[in-house]
Amino acid sequence: MTPLTYEQAGVDYDKIDPLKVAAQRAAASTATQLARHGFSEVQASRGESAYVVDVGPFYLASIVECLGSKALVADEMARLTGTSHYASIAQDTIAMAVNDLITVGATPLVVQAYWAAGGSDWFGDAARSTALVEGWKRACEICGVAWGGGETPALAGIVEAGRIDLAASCTGIVNPKQRLSVGDALAAGDAIVMLGSSGIHANGVSLARKLAERLPQGWLTPIDERGTRFGDVLLAPTTLYSPVTEALWQAGIAPHYSANITGHGWRKLLRHPKALTYRITHVPPVPPVLAFIAEHAGHDAQEAYSTFNMGAGFALFVAAGDAQRCVDVARAQGIEAWVAGRVDAGPKQLLIEPLSLRFGDEALQLR
Amino acid sequence: MTPLTYEQAGVDYDKIDPLKVAAQRAAASTATQLARHGFSEVQASRGESAYVVDVGPFYLASIVECLGSKALVADEMARLTGTSHYASIAQDTIAMAVNDLITVGATPLVVQAYWAAGGSDWFGDAARSTALVEGWKRACEICGVAWGGGETPALAGIVEAGRIDLAASCTGIVNPKQRLSVGDALAAGDAIVMLGSSGIHANGVSLARKLAERLPQGWLTPIDERGTRFGDVLLAPTTLYSPVTEALWQAGIAPHYSANITGHGWRKLLRHPKALTYRITHVPPVPPVLAFIAEHAGHDAQEAYSTFNMGAGFALFVAAGDAQRCVDVARAQGIEAWVAGRVDAGPKQLLIEPLSLRFGDEALQLR
Repeated sequence: MTPLTYEQAGVDYDKIDPLKVAAQRAAASTATQLARHGFSEVQASRGESAYVVDVGPFYLASIVECLGSKALVADEMARLTGTSHYASIAQDTIAMAVNDLITVGATPLVVQAYWAAGGSDWFGDAARSTALVEGWKRACEICGVAWGGGETPALAGIVEAGRIDLAASCTGIVNPKQRLSVGDALAAGDAIVMLGSSGIHANGVSLARKLAERLPQGWLTPIDERGTRFGDVLLAPTTLYSPVTEALWQAGIAPHYSANITGHGWRKLLRHPKALTYRITHVPPVPPVLAFIAEHAGHDAQEAYSTFNMGAGFALFVAAGDAQRCVDVARAQGIEAWVAGRVDAGPKQLLIEPLSLRFGDEALQLR
Repeated sequence: MTPLTYEQAGVDYDKIDPLKVAAQRAAASTATQLARHGFSEVQASRGESAYVVDVGPFYLASIVECLGSKALVADEMARLTGTSHYASIAQDTIAMAVNDLITVGATPLVVQAYWAAGGSDWFGDAARSTALVEGWKRACEICGVAWGGGETPALAGIVEAGRIDLAASCTGIVNPKQRLSVGDALAAGDAIVMLGSSGIHANGVSLARKLAERLPQGWLTPIDERGTRFGDVLLAPTTLYSPVTEALWQAGIAPHYSANITGHGWRKLLRHPKALTYRITHVPPVPPVLAFIAEHAGHDAQEAYSTFNMGAGFALFVAAGDAQRCVDVARAQGIEAWVAGRVDAGPKQLLIEPLSLRFGDEALQLR
């Protein structure tokens, strides 16, 4: 059996990357427009997970994020079992936006819904529509954001019949301004605190879908002795981390930097451009669904940790003296956390010592 | 020949509306979340074109908007003529978001791009990608906004192969707070100033696509004696109105209310819930492409004005004494404008007197 790679899952980054680079350059050139209004961008936020503008009394942060292909898993499970997982899918979509927005130190305030269906029929399924609405509302409540509104277009000819393209935009503020976290304070000696994930979240799903095609019972394949089905466990909703970042601020802790562990898995720990060594000394337990995928996709640890969150969905880089308190604050919010390692002086690399893994600077090229 | 109606164009609002109502109610219930951060929503902005939050020194406004199906017209014209219109399509997408955001008195500051393609291949077409990037940048410059970033997912299985789902989110501020325009000051005696459109903009496009199927030469059908082709003229980019609203503020004019004339055409003049009569005494010239559609789709004036912008893409409700200056300010920004009518005491209705048309309260049900 040949191992499954992300490239086989159908996304060819060689085709997307030239456009991305052109778009990033064009976008960067528009920063000067803000001067017309007496404002300026936080230049260090270019290349970060959310874009930040200095509007005087505080910073403004904004973002739009796509769910990706996870809704296709929900569609398959609904077809096979009759159960709608769209409440979870709603939370996943909001998590994509909120978990990115908070990395810069922002408090998310407003979420807008982007629900583009392949036709009006999609919205006619009352159970599914209700699950989506209720899940969206619940996720907003967990994050303490107002659901501002959104769009529910029917896009026959663009979105496939029976499918939905889900995205969320989120706007927040960094207030007070010293909460801004774009890596200025990130330095050797910092501790790395990792926050637990609920499973695959919404990254690596295309690969999981390829894997389902290979499994004898497909989406219904049991992944443990209790008969937990692959499709069900894959649809566990993404953990929302904003309650933790808000509680940290209340506790007087301002992270030096944060990384949302999404696409590229743990390589996201290399996100900041500074030349620093990230040394992981404790690896969180791997969620059963991710262990299952790694085993059946034929992934070694290097491949698995460079693709999936492997149990840690968010990383906080904090002053060493704040590390244990950081863990306590997260646990008080019901989210598992670990002091997982530290930042050292040295070449830019990620060392996962318990697994003897190394990822160099070249492993993550986002800018 | 049977007249073409919007229902025939394939969108069944009876299926979408129950979800919309449920979503609006759920969204409204989340407003209380803002109290956790010491803020509150501007309740009157629920049901308006952008959502507004009071964050203390100013108001925050945000929105996400979909282009709709206009990209399909660009795809057809590219296939037939080899020319990419994606620079115009980019401007259309930004216009959907910016022209809505400014209705509440906000200055748009940041736009995020949402470009979800049916596969990585979409981005591999360099001419098309370049047009999209350049058009997006140019539209940001016209509006004085920073392009913050965005998403370029490849969504095979959700978005159709060879297609792209385009949307934009926009964040802005209402500053100073007295610029807030949610209709509190709208009253009998106000003048209605209408701003010129460039053509169909991006509303009514599904109907135009249906019409193209009926035309002997389809998209290449000449609409005038000079041989201007239907597809080309349909792809004129949507007018961006934020330079006008910013210039109005500079000139000391704060509109009492604004309406972006998009879906539902001139019925959008009935947008505000107040019981007032909107009396139009001057009808702007109809762009040739809209006259052509009305003629060939078999629309009478009632149908045409309730579907298309008919030459006026934005309406400003201003103090009567400011009306002519409003026109002058718009023209100085290169956008045609007319004092088109006035607001009278009376039942909620829109009267387009030169055409003997009347639309009652029941003609627009958005809340």
